Amino acid sequence: MTTTTAEPPTDSLAPAGRTAAGRVLAVLGAFDYQHRLLSLSEIARRGELTLPTAHRLVAELVSFGALERGHDGRYGVGLRLLELSALAPRGLQLREIAFPFLSHLHRTTGGNVHLGVRDGSEVVYVDTMRSRLRHPITSRVGDRWPLHATGTGLVLLAHAGQDVQDEVLSAPLERFTPKTVVDPGELRRILTQIRRTGVAVAHGQITLPNTVVAVPVLAISGEVTAAISVVVESERARPRELEIALREVSRAISRSLKAANGVHTG
Amino acid sequence: MTTTTAEPPTDSLAPAGRTAAGRVLAVLGAFDYQHRLLSLSEIARRGELTLPTAHRLVAELVSFGALERGHDGRYGVGLRLLELSALAPRGLQLREIAFPFLSHLHRTTGGNVHLGVRDGSEVVYVDTMRSRLRHPITSRVGDRWPLHATGTGLVLLAHAGQDVQDEVLSAPLERFTPKTVVDPGELRRILTQIRRTGVAVAHGQITLPNTVVAVPVLAISGEVTAAISVVVESERARPRELEIALREVSRAISRSLKAANGVHTG
Repeated sequence: MTTTTAEPPTDSLAPAGRTAAGRVLAVLGAFDYQHRLLSLSEIARRGELTLPTAHRLVAELVSFGALERGHDGRYGVGLRLLELSALAPRGLQLREIAFPFLSHLHRTTGGNVHLGVRDGSEVVYVDTMRSRLRHPITSRVGDRWPLHATGTGLVLLAHAGQDVQDEVLSAPLERFTPKTVVDPGELRRILTQIRRTGVAVAHGQITLPNTVVAVPVLAISGEVTAAISVVVESERARPRELEIALREVSRAISRSLKAANGVHTG
Repeated sequence: MTTTTAEPPTDSLAPAGRTAAGRVLAVLGAFDYQHRLLSLSEIARRGELTLPTAHRLVAELVSFGALERGHDGRYGVGLRLLELSALAPRGLQLREIAFPFLSHLHRTTGGNVHLGVRDGSEVVYVDTMRSRLRHPITSRVGDRWPLHATGTGLVLLAHAGQDVQDEVLSAPLERFTPKTVVDPGELRRILTQIRRTGVAVAHGQITLPNTVVAVPVLAISGEVTAAISVVVESERARPRELEIALREVSRAISRSLKAANGVHTG
């Protein structure tokens, strides 16, 4: 495909090889947790766009509702993206189905509750419920963590294809605490055990004083589509009781997934 | 619009005047609640794009993570949009702050809980917590409702600018039940009362057997940034008690918004 003079002039100013769609996504990609509100020039700089291009794209994204302009003139992510993300089969829709059960789990265990799905070699939290003030973990909806270090991640890794496991285990494994398991051999044994027992229990892998218990959630197909976990302070943790509660919630979510058939939970 | 054999400048095949960004957004806009999973040709048709253009844009959106391809080959909204929407200052971030308080409200009242913000002449739900099985209302995160018919909407309308109120009251007002107030004069009186009392109480406006109680949530600036509501069956509703519980939760959310300063809640 040849890009000739027919292209709009602004395109020639963009980094070589970037497509029009790429530039739109570069605007969106300029936002992250440390950069939730950006001025036009910050968007241009972070998205590696010229100011006129950024100006034009931001205006279109605002008119679509994907971005919003705040009182101070800076831009943030708009409600239209919330609407769209609510359609994500593995996102808010899964959350919607799981919510009443996770809420119950949150209430009865008093721990932090997570609902995660695998995206490549990471787990993405589709829902998190934090207990007020205790457990200073900043896990939010949309957060990503490496699979090897979190409860939900370990469950998802244990049930991922051999190729995913090989990829994760052959790459450097980040250490979050002295207790984080970063030895590939030991991790492999842990994954085998998770598959055998159907539950992951880990102590202090991300934050030293905490214990996590996690179990898989099965899709209609019988495949592992998500994982749920509860994080509590290790000193008051009763892993066996948490496991029973988690299994019950997992079954309830699976039943609801079945009832809401047509949901793509691949 | 002529469809010739010369494929490459796909841009020229798109509807006249549509920009590159517009076409990317047309792909995303092809998805809604009735169309959560789409084939490539469905995306092309619904987005009014040629198949080659749709193919190219979908590939880029998949590589960005904004779309995902399921087992059956159809596409759905991807986790990257969930991540992005988590950054929305008026979206999941507000939800994150409000969650523990709303969860408490949900638990203590046993009703359906909503957190809504105004977007033009509609309220968008940033969070919803449904009681299991009771109250068959399908209010989900990302859902939009007209301001005049819902509890959160009435509160947001009462505190919106005169221009917004005039616009809403001069347009046709949709009737959902025989009890939905659709008379502009009566609605104006209701809005005045909501401003005076600081609470909206409505019976059967959306679903006949239900009562909603809603109050505003104030931003750091003192402006109304959101509204929260509880929906319960009218026959067991105790509006005064719900009002007290809602006010308490509203104050707690406002305090947390203050603590999380830097949050744009305009």
